[in-house]
Amino acid sequence: MISRQDCLALDAQDGLAALRERFDLPDGVIYLDGNSLGARPRAALARAQQLLAQEWGTDLIRSWNKAGWFELPLRLGDKLAPLIGAGAGEVVVTDSTSVNLFKMLAAALHRQAMRSDSTARRTIVTERANFPTDIYMAQGLAEWLDRGYRLRLVDAPEELEAAIGADTAVVMLTHVNYRSGHMHDMKAVTAHAHANGALTVWDLAHSAGAVPVDLRAAEADYAVGCTYKYLNGGPGAPAFAWVAPRHQADFRQPLSGWWGHAEPFTMQPEFRPADGIRRAQCGTQPILSLALVECGLDIFAETDMQSVRRKSLALTDLFIALLEQRCAHHPLTLATPREHARRGSQVSVAHPDGYPVMQALIARGVIGDYREPQIMRFGFTPLYTRFADVWDAVDILADILDGGKYDRGAQRDAVT
Amino acid sequence: MISRQDCLALDAQDGLAALRERFDLPDGVIYLDGNSLGARPRAALARAQQLLAQEWGTDLIRSWNKAGWFELPLRLGDKLAPLIGAGAGEVVVTDSTSVNLFKMLAAALHRQAMRSDSTARRTIVTERANFPTDIYMAQGLAEWLDRGYRLRLVDAPEELEAAIGADTAVVMLTHVNYRSGHMHDMKAVTAHAHANGALTVWDLAHSAGAVPVDLRAAEADYAVGCTYKYLNGGPGAPAFAWVAPRHQADFRQPLSGWWGHAEPFTMQPEFRPADGIRRAQCGTQPILSLALVECGLDIFAETDMQSVRRKSLALTDLFIALLEQRCAHHPLTLATPREHARRGSQVSVAHPDGYPVMQALIARGVIGDYREPQIMRFGFTPLYTRFADVWDAVDILADILDGGKYDRGAQRDAVT
Repeated sequence: MISRQDCLALDAQDGLAALRERFDLPDGVIYLDGNSLGARPRAALARAQQLLAQEWGTDLIRSWNKAGWFELPLRLGDKLAPLIGAGAGEVVVTDSTSVNLFKMLAAALHRQAMRSDSTARRTIVTERANFPTDIYMAQGLAEWLDRGYRLRLVDAPEELEAAIGADTAVVMLTHVNYRSGHMHDMKAVTAHAHANGALTVWDLAHSAGAVPVDLRAAEADYAVGCTYKYLNGGPGAPAFAWVAPRHQADFRQPLSGWWGHAEPFTMQPEFRPADGIRRAQCGTQPILSLALVECGLDIFAETDMQSVRRKSLALTDLFIALLEQRCAHHPLTLATPREHARRGSQVSVAHPDGYPVMQALIARGVIGDYREPQIMRFGFTPLYTRFADVWDAVDILADILDGGKYDRGAQRDAVT
Repeated sequence: MISRQDCLALDAQDGLAALRERFDLPDGVIYLDGNSLGARPRAALARAQQLLAQEWGTDLIRSWNKAGWFELPLRLGDKLAPLIGAGAGEVVVTDSTSVNLFKMLAAALHRQAMRSDSTARRTIVTERANFPTDIYMAQGLAEWLDRGYRLRLVDAPEELEAAIGADTAVVMLTHVNYRSGHMHDMKAVTAHAHANGALTVWDLAHSAGAVPVDLRAAEADYAVGCTYKYLNGGPGAPAFAWVAPRHQADFRQPLSGWWGHAEPFTMQPEFRPADGIRRAQCGTQPILSLALVECGLDIFAETDMQSVRRKSLALTDLFIALLEQRCAHHPLTLATPREHARRGSQVSVAHPDGYPVMQALIARGVIGDYREPQIMRFGFTPLYTRFADVWDAVDILADILDGGKYDRGAQRDAVT
């Protein structure tokens, strides 16, 4: 039997415990939704003040040079790169994940169109359970290109291998599934894709800052990801994109805006792409939201993804063990793999009354979220989640379930 | 002869003078670059603090509902709509101008593809002097669609009429030119386009908040624009998009992300577009940058575009008159039309040493900017520019030119 005392002991030994002080967290809240919106770094308030008062307010237009605004997407990309196994000059922080996915998928199809067997390669393989926007963006691109591209939606990770073949142009996957927390073996899937002549586009929305990622070692082709979840960049902060160095020279994408031009300020009427990852850029970026991404990245610079992963697995193992210890008599189904190699940094649990139970949890200060159908998601963010938080969260969940303390008719929020 | 005293008298009578207090402007600076980056509304600091401390920091994920984050693009769109002659539910604030232009241009081509003469309509008419990103985005879209679309770049506004014909799918124009400050007659050009079976996509980057725009009265088809120039939304703040109500039902665009889905939180694997302008959205938006757009829009709610325009013309007339009075002996060429109906809210002046002269002006606190080739741009933002500022700016310019007080070998900044 695990006791709260045991959890406090784990916190006392936790090498990452001090990093919690880098965040402003509200009192009375156990925040298990950092997989959806990361908590606010303390440094963000002062950085925003500096940006608004000095850079925007006082220096005004001069800040494009003086404060390096124009170079921010590249500079932040370099800072993010080590977290995903990328090198300098390979990552750019810009636009939304959806928009970046469109660029990367288009670039992958463009590259494949140069193959001699390209007419037979018209399939984009992904999962039906992928985050919907990824599927929607692929649908949009395929429909508009109107060259016979079609999606193949795989129903389970086990069916992926067989779904990739000589007709596959691109395998587009989210590394860690947003709903189940299942993690793909990036290296194995990429190798299998390459063996079949396909390219890979990886969505790292639930991976960057959550699990160790090594894009170069996996020989991945393209990747996108999110900065406002585990990277704590702020609500809706710009996303990132990565292109393997071997693909950069012939990288082309349709959103050819001026920030991707080789000489944007010479104002020429012909598009000429910049070198390297710079050409993945499109239009002017939201500087305030972009600049605060740095505050989250700076915290990661104080640790390493191996330490983060070790604690992440300890937290999710603990949560699963406590669920079994305290809630085994309730109709809870674990949706997240027990196998460490297949698990992201969240634990998802299905319950027939998942929505109202989650509402009851939130009302009592345990903030997770809900995803259709039936799934209660609990994200474990090693930078600011304590082992005792896990104990307290399960304690409250057990109380809610044991006492039926939730409202089956709870009204749905617009955003769930 | 106009004296500084005359200018002070104009300020004393100025009905908009009090609005300057809504902005934090640095001491010792005459800011004539609001056409590039608008000054910071005073309210922005407190709003950012609220957003960071309460909404992100304390309420965290709950702010998507509680603070209405998800509805911000539509709510801000409704607030912006009156400034451009649009109705409620017609405007969305989202993504960058470049990305929105891609969506609108694609939507226009999609609509045209349904015509019986569509195969003969493959030309996108625009100006060679259009802001480059508009041209680049059109090039990117045309190239990727690979259906014979081509751009026709018109060399002067007078050639526009003849360039629009039976082969024209879309006329894509920036209403007020970024470099010259020339303004098109939106209603006349739109009528001419329609008479020739073409649709219009208007870029209002230098119009929204600068000149009265009436998209509905002009019977325009699609529009995009910028919030960080005359609307004072903050550096790189999200752009906006407008679709004429008559085109909304069959509006389709390729960047079909989850924010444009009819039911984004049901997580279905098929894209089904939302009703109305909502379907022009794509991915998750940068909330901090987005929210501050409201501070700029709120200032416009204290006045109307007719008052703004009256003062804008008075300011630009004064600037031109003072240039003639003080600098007529220098090789300055007015690039902005004298005719009110053709003038935006800026005055551009070519000078062989435009770049170093502008650098000298900036060093002495008169902040305009430079655009290749030779153009010194001066933006006049009626909400915070005083008539005496105009006098002082020309006074300093005259001193620089008369004394040759600039460095011909001035090093170029990366961002000009």
